[in-house]
Amino acid sequence: SNSNNKKMPALEVNPDLQKERNTATFDPQEFSVYWAGGQEKYKAKKTLEELFLDDPALKDDLPTSYMSHKELYENSVRKSCLIGQKIRKLRADGEDGVDTYNALLGGSLGAALLKEGNPLSLHYVMFVPTIMGQGTTEQQVEWLPKAWDCEIIGTYAQTELGHGTFLRGLETRADYDASTQEFVINTPTRTAYKWWPGGLGHTANYAVVVAQLYTKGEFRGLAPFIVQLRDLDNHQPMQGIDIGDIGTKLGMKGVNNGYLGLKNVRVPLNHMLMKNQQVLPDGTYVAPKNSVLTYGTMMFVRCALIRDTAQSLAKSSTIATRYSAVRRQSPIDPNQPEPQIMDHTTQQLKLFPQIAKAIVFKTTGDGVWNMYNVISGEIEQGNLDRLPEMHALSCCLKAICSTDAAAGVETCRLSCGGHGFMDCSNFPTIYGMTTAVCTYEGENTVMLLQTARYLVKVYGQALNGEQLVPTVAYINEAIKLKEFVNFDGSLESIVKAFQFVAANKVRVAYEQIELRRRQGHGTEVSANLCGPLLTAAADLHGRAFLAQSAYKELTEVASHVSPALADVLKVVLELYLVDACLNRIGDFLRFIELTDRDVTNLEIRLESCLNRLRPNAVALVDSFDLHDRVLDSALGAYDGNVYERIFESTKKNPLNKEPVNAAFHKYLKPFMKANL
Amino acid sequence: SNSNNKKMPALEVNPDLQKERNTATFDPQEFSVYWAGGQEKYKAKKTLEELFLDDPALKDDLPTSYMSHKELYENSVRKSCLIGQKIRKLRADGEDGVDTYNALLGGSLGAALLKEGNPLSLHYVMFVPTIMGQGTTEQQVEWLPKAWDCEIIGTYAQTELGHGTFLRGLETRADYDASTQEFVINTPTRTAYKWWPGGLGHTANYAVVVAQLYTKGEFRGLAPFIVQLRDLDNHQPMQGIDIGDIGTKLGMKGVNNGYLGLKNVRVPLNHMLMKNQQVLPDGTYVAPKNSVLTYGTMMFVRCALIRDTAQSLAKSSTIATRYSAVRRQSPIDPNQPEPQIMDHTTQQLKLFPQIAKAIVFKTTGDGVWNMYNVISGEIEQGNLDRLPEMHALSCCLKAICSTDAAAGVETCRLSCGGHGFMDCSNFPTIYGMTTAVCTYEGENTVMLLQTARYLVKVYGQALNGEQLVPTVAYINEAIKLKEFVNFDGSLESIVKAFQFVAANKVRVAYEQIELRRRQGHGTEVSANLCGPLLTAAADLHGRAFLAQSAYKELTEVASHVSPALADVLKVVLELYLVDACLNRIGDFLRFIELTDRDVTNLEIRLESCLNRLRPNAVALVDSFDLHDRVLDSALGAYDGNVYERIFESTKKNPLNKEPVNAAFHKYLKPFMKANL
Repeated sequence: SNSNNKKMPALEVNPDLQKERNTATFDPQEFSVYWAGGQEKYKAKKTLEELFLDDPALKDDLPTSYMSHKELYENSVRKSCLIGQKIRKLRADGEDGVDTYNALLGGSLGAALLKEGNPLSLHYVMFVPTIMGQGTTEQQVEWLPKAWDCEIIGTYAQTELGHGTFLRGLETRADYDASTQEFVINTPTRTAYKWWPGGLGHTANYAVVVAQLYTKGEFRGLAPFIVQLRDLDNHQPMQGIDIGDIGTKLGMKGVNNGYLGLKNVRVPLNHMLMKNQQVLPDGTYVAPKNSVLTYGTMMFVRCALIRDTAQSLAKSSTIATRYSAVRRQSPIDPNQPEPQIMDHTTQQLKLFPQIAKAIVFKTTGDGVWNMYNVISGEIEQGNLDRLPEMHALSCCLKAICSTDAAAGVETCRLSCGGHGFMDCSNFPTIYGMTTAVCTYEGENTVMLLQTARYLVKVYGQALNGEQLVPTVAYINEAIKLKEFVNFDGSLESIVKAFQFVAANKVRVAYEQIELRRRQGHGTEVSANLCGPLLTAAADLHGRAFLAQSAYKELTEVASHVSPALADVLKVVLELYLVDACLNRIGDFLRFIELTDRDVTNLEIRLESCLNRLRPNAVALVDSFDLHDRVLDSALGAYDGNVYERIFESTKKNPLNKEPVNAAFHKYLKPFMKANL
Repeated sequence: SNSNNKKMPALEVNPDLQKERNTATFDPQEFSVYWAGGQEKYKAKKTLEELFLDDPALKDDLPTSYMSHKELYENSVRKSCLIGQKIRKLRADGEDGVDTYNALLGGSLGAALLKEGNPLSLHYVMFVPTIMGQGTTEQQVEWLPKAWDCEIIGTYAQTELGHGTFLRGLETRADYDASTQEFVINTPTRTAYKWWPGGLGHTANYAVVVAQLYTKGEFRGLAPFIVQLRDLDNHQPMQGIDIGDIGTKLGMKGVNNGYLGLKNVRVPLNHMLMKNQQVLPDGTYVAPKNSVLTYGTMMFVRCALIRDTAQSLAKSSTIATRYSAVRRQSPIDPNQPEPQIMDHTTQQLKLFPQIAKAIVFKTTGDGVWNMYNVISGEIEQGNLDRLPEMHALSCCLKAICSTDAAAGVETCRLSCGGHGFMDCSNFPTIYGMTTAVCTYEGENTVMLLQTARYLVKVYGQALNGEQLVPTVAYINEAIKLKEFVNFDGSLESIVKAFQFVAANKVRVAYEQIELRRRQGHGTEVSANLCGPLLTAAADLHGRAFLAQSAYKELTEVASHVSPALADVLKVVLELYLVDACLNRIGDFLRFIELTDRDVTNLEIRLESCLNRLRPNAVALVDSFDLHDRVLDSALGAYDGNVYERIFESTKKNPLNKEPVNAAFHKYLKPFMKANL
């Protein structure tokens, strides 16, 4: 089933890796289909992979890590246009569903095609959707056909050099000039420059620019404007536009993030997107009915990010697990040869929790996604009851999953020793892509504080005896419980204990804020002083949700798959929960009466989970079904020919094309001969 | 005092940053002198910085992140030769002490000159010292003058593609041919290829190659051989030498790490370094008297690495702290303007512990360095008593400090939001350099296991009532104590509690290994099963040492500096200890009777430490006295003109030299116009 994963068909599978596959107790194919979302999606995925990955023009002869920033940009544009052409064709054939865009632009297939990101992504995922979501029907008719056909290429410019999360702080302003029926847009200071938008540097010729709106001399709030950045024929920046690439970065190196200064740039009245708020020709401002809609988009994106973090962990753990089956080092028994490093328990502790987290984040991401769809249906019908709850949940899960995923990628990299440090392992790129998620779409600490603010409010409601919405209902139970009894180490009791501990973390934060207030601080200052307690409470809330979700979803899946697969998933679940508990054991010991013995028992169970997962570790990562091009790793290829592939990678290194580099003649020789 | 730190003298210091300096309660200059190691070393440091940093040829017009791998290599060789010339001159003037080499090749000045590493480093720090340490007097006379004068450039080739930590696994072999009095050196397999040595790729023309020695057909153990790699005149690889650059990496990108295959390469008898072991012309092998000496070098390097990790934290915390004084975001009080982000308690919790760790790792590094010198003096006099203790200590400290430093760098980077993600922040490079320490000179998990092996042995001795050496003597006390009483939260009691907890972690590991043995597993298998318990025990042992060392060293320093500085150092110490304790609170709660209230009190103390350090945070990082070129960060420059410098950095971006990139005409335009 994984035959199309083989890149160098002449090479046989490494015998150590083959042995792992031969002795696995379940069929990875069964899990692969589940992982892809069912038989139909599995097939669609394979078809899409073939269509894109078999195209030789979309393969890089020179790995991107050898390119200069400029070469990387030019190569990224070349490929993004090829991908755009294929998308155009898929669209013409009616095969351009949301899944397809996701896979090609953000998903693992997208990363296989443009591993450092696609400079056209924001055109598809932000420019077009913003016009759809915030444009009037007339505006959609005017702009969407051109945008869909890529006759114009747009981006979305909101964040500024000096202003990020706090939108009210944005400085870019649009002043309506009723005499010409135009907006005059300016970035009045250096910190007002738009900063970060993907594709903005040298790629896009249009942007939706978010600015502070003024009409009739009065401030009206933020509004989005369609602004032409570059001439459609010669691509020169339009008058008043100062534009360029912000420079090299830790990751996402091909995205062409740009900066944008605007000086008295005039756009006509109908370039303001007016679905939600309007400016009339005379400058009269009509305010939006409600501002809930923007929450919807943010929640949508954050829910999607949870699944992205699962993919990062799936990739990293696949690479590190296969490598650990092939690499041999450090005898366990001095009289025996060096074992597969996966036989070291310390190595298992690095790898297997990442595999488990990949699975739990994926199933939780799916669950939250369904929840989002239900709630956003309710919202569209005017029922906003569950909006704050959903917002709070999506914030903390985004923060926790991205933090854990970034740490997990690094754990996997470090588990591969020096070889993980080489770009041919692909870990450095995966890390860059993953850790970026900690910052974009809401910086993680800000996210946790938003969740915490909600939790503290809910805690006050609970104290007042009010009923609570589903995802925080456990707080009411914990308040009634006072003391957690009967921690028997069962999975159910770990889940319950997580909730009890989370409720107590919220209690501590609540009580300390109240204490600060009684000491005379204002509410906001009190909350700031208790910031670390608040983020810790939000962290535990999210982890309690993950524990409960892991239990619910994996038990569910296990109930309708083969017994062989079900057995493996049960070990995954147990490993996840025991590991999660031990990682927060301080909080458990603080709020629940546990003995040294209880902790030792958990540690022994962890060891047992690792041992029981050991025989199926390779089969589990195989079942993530990640194409070799997606992994792009000499260490993690399906055939396990690690050393051959590392060696092969040196052949592509431009430095190795000549036996003697010019620097010898220019610098080294004169230096060495100077004293002779 | 920091006047030479200013890069763009036309710019005034950012007023927010200046305000921080004006309101600090101590004189950073006083701490700077201590930090440099006293007045004399402080002056020497300044002189060296001037000599090297003012040389325009050693400045890069184009930041390295914009270069291709090949360009970066060529630029690195150019600069390393210039640095080599200056070293030659210093040597001629008799000013080439160990400190100078350290500063230029490994230290922060070295990083300012060649931020991605120096391809000649291994020549100075491994090739020359190995000849000095392992060559006979005749060999030293033959090789050292040429090597010191850089008439030949060497490297040190030990690690192989398939073999790292476990030296007995190395495959490269040297067979002595008595008929010609030569060794025949071979890398018989692909995995035997030497891999990783710095400068090996295209720079060095010599190497010390470590190989398995065979004479008279018998295996004799490892031995070092001087091997010529390239022709001295034309730099072509010698016959039988397959050599090149291993490729791009996460960090240390300019080091030219290489690979080396040897096929029947013959070297004369006197090319084996024979100070410790000898081969006679007829092939008779004379074994070394003891193998202790290699431990010495490893300990030496690991002790030095502890101080490097302190530098990484000093750099990162300087950048992030200055940025946090300048950046304003997210109101605390909605009626107030956006505050300096350093006023957010959550931000303080990210930054200040890194400042404290920088100081504690530095003072501990100094302390351990002195200890190493004492013990290595004892060793030279034949007294090996404290060797295992010192080895165990250096292993776990190397692991803990590098792990914490790498995590600390990332915490600082993430605390700067999106801007930390840009290469112009310098965080990506600092991270690459720092996380590398987790892997080289002994992979961290292997290091912790070595320490743990020692601790478990010592625990057995303690149970037998034996006396223990100083750094583990606390285990005996803890065994007597049974229960830890009187945890009053004082700094002394936190240090004592750390030791008690560490002793109990060792106990748990010891008991579990014993249990596995009683269950019928062999000793080695039992130890492997308990691997996670062992590494956790070694971690706590190291952290207990750090706590005790922080207490001892900082109390010491505070006793003979000005009261103003002493007050600040006391807050640093308290912050370090309380934070360290809370980070391992699970272990504390497991072994010591602490209540929820006790933990809350620690949390309140942490908050109090953060608040008390807040006014002096900028002055503290100023007193690390890191030159702007060392920081190389738009976010962290002394003048705090963050936005101006970020903006300035975009001017150097080759993509921004032309308003329209060629990719528009080649790819974008045809793509956009395809449907028209």
